[in-house]
Amino acid sequence: MALNDTPSPFRTPEQRKIDREAKRMAVLTAAVRMFNERGFHATSLDDVAASLGISKPTIYHYLGNKEQVLIACLRQALRELIEAAEQARARPGNSADRLRSFLVNYAEFNLRDFGRCVILTSDNQLSEDAAAAVRAEKRRIHDMMRAMIEEGCADGSIVCEDANLLAFTLAGALNWPARWYDDAAGAGPRETVAKMVDMLAAGFAPRQ
Amino acid sequence: MALNDTPSPFRTPEQRKIDREAKRMAVLTAAVRMFNERGFHATSLDDVAASLGISKPTIYHYLGNKEQVLIACLRQALRELIEAAEQARARPGNSADRLRSFLVNYAEFNLRDFGRCVILTSDNQLSEDAAAAVRAEKRRIHDMMRAMIEEGCADGSIVCEDANLLAFTLAGALNWPARWYDDAAGAGPRETVAKMVDMLAAGFAPRQ
Repeated sequence: MALNDTPSPFRTPEQRKIDREAKRMAVLTAAVRMFNERGFHATSLDDVAASLGISKPTIYHYLGNKEQVLIACLRQALRELIEAAEQARARPGNSADRLRSFLVNYAEFNLRDFGRCVILTSDNQLSEDAAAAVRAEKRRIHDMMRAMIEEGCADGSIVCEDANLLAFTLAGALNWPARWYDDAAGAGPRETVAKMVDMLAAGFAPRQ
Repeated sequence: MALNDTPSPFRTPEQRKIDREAKRMAVLTAAVRMFNERGFHATSLDDVAASLGISKPTIYHYLGNKEQVLIACLRQALRELIEAAEQARARPGNSADRLRSFLVNYAEFNLRDFGRCVILTSDNQLSEDAAAAVRAEKRRIHDMMRAMIEEGCADGSIVCEDANLLAFTLAGALNWPARWYDDAAGAGPRETVAKMVDMLAAGFAPRQ
């Protein structure tokens, strides 16, 4: 039997990195669900730790204190949204198609754990520095949405007089379901989101 | 000199009622501004009292504890919104005109102190009973908006496949400025709201 056939009891640096990242994400996921359900103030890291069968110092080790956990949740979410916007802008079709594709991803993401956390967290729950960092990443997403709208005005697939305000209006409409949408209420999230994006897109489609 | 020309140093029950209501509204207005600026958790009734030059027991006397003050702020706001919806429904014109008129009032209200408080307060900041009462009043506003949309579908002034979802979509878009709108950013609230409502209304206008 060759030496390499026996798995080493020692993990490689690469394995340790993967392992660490998996633990970090498990903590973030448990925390984000409690923040969304109970609110940030009513959630304690003791409860988050207990739900994972670990101790609070383990959370401190991987992420830090409660505010640092919240910030990590928000940055995780915003990173995913920025990626979704970049992917949408790289897609074929006209600008209106790319915008619609992003709006669908954006709205679906807002109904999932990390997306909801961004919507449900208000600036005044964060320290000034953290709020500024979060605002800067939100601004990047807004700017990408506005750029897609401006490109659509240029190629004629979108009609709009104020791209900046349209970006805020679309985002607002698609942020709000994080506050009211309930799976139990009937239509699934995909169908609800698709219909909302259709309604909004009718507002910026060129009139024939 | 007739007896009635000398003002009585004793207030009538009617004057006392007006006086009491003025004091109650002064407390609510001071409280709602602090809740909006600092967040509910970070606001203390001591600070609200100090800003009015009164004592905390005076606030207890007129309104109760901090949660009761918040609930009174929310009910005040929702009452005004319900009145605005009733007035809009009584207006002349077709249903789309009535809906647009309500949307403008609704969005402008959301940018003022009491309206912002409704948007910035999440359900999990309230006790279960209070949350249920607030939800019931929000539902009335939603139902009136939906009724205006359904009337518009019937008279042909509105095109929409799902009045319920359109009501949520319009409200969401017009709630969100409470989170981002800043007077300092350029256009005034009236102009911003008018443009947003135009954009949204283009989505439900019949295509010629």
